Amino acid sequence: MSDRAAVLFANDAFYVAFQSHDIQAMNALWAIGPTVSCVHPGWNHLAGRDVVMESWDGILANHDGPSFEVKGSSASIFEDTAVVICYEVFAEATMVATNVFVREDGEWRIMHHQASASPPPPVSDELEQPETIQ
Amino acid sequence: MSDRAAVLFANDAFYVAFQSHDIQAMNALWAIGPTVSCVHPGWNHLAGRDVVMESWDGILANHDGPSFEVKGSSASIFEDTAVVICYEVFAEATMVATNVFVREDGEWRIMHHQASASPPPPVSDELEQPETIQ
Repeated sequence: MSDRAAVLFANDAFYVAFQSHDIQAMNALWAIGPTVSCVHPGWNHLAGRDVVMESWDGILANHDGPSFEVKGSSASIFEDTAVVICYEVFAEATMVATNVFVREDGEWRIMHHQASASPPPPVSDELEQPETIQ
Repeated sequence: MSDRAAVLFANDAFYVAFQSHDIQAMNALWAIGPTVSCVHPGWNHLAGRDVVMESWDGILANHDGPSFEVKGSSASIFEDTAVVICYEVFAEATMVATNVFVREDGEWRIMHHQASASPPPPVSDELEQPETIQ
């Protein structure tokens, strides 16, 4: 698997954990080494593994949260660091996310996530995402 | 100068170019090698140097835009990549930004910027920023 495919796979795994409310999987996907950080939509910046995972505990405990599709993911790889930009498309809103990954013990783990309100993704972005071509 | 100081200096230079409407300085601060990308508050994701610089041309041409202070900057360094999180504090709103830098020809250049609406920075974050302690 290429680095790009592996990073996009890790990004998909992040959203699978998110949407399946799997806090154990979410915990395993976040980096151990660096200070991880997270900006949920409309929240302050959270820094440090304990506070970031506490935020996910709260978010994933809400099983009534709306589902969404991930679209238009693109990855930039720099040795052992990678940046993924993607859209989180809800029924009535869209978020755009920056997800930064680092390679730890041969695995890509997320070290930073920022998501914020966005217009819907352009149609051209949707076409870049293989699973949307069906 | 340590890598951390150099990255925070590059982050400061980005905001100096922003606030002084200096499109030439802004252009020189963005990376050449990777596909650069940018998410302005409430905009779609922009990818590619031409489209990103065109967006800055438009933003910096508006000399009536409100000024802001940069607060709470923190940097994570990974070899030749770095992630800076900081607050852009306007009189009536606050943005939180993720700025990703890459080292090119020995200089830290920005390759991705996302800014979005946020609550004001916590007081503890302000204390991390030396210029706010006066």
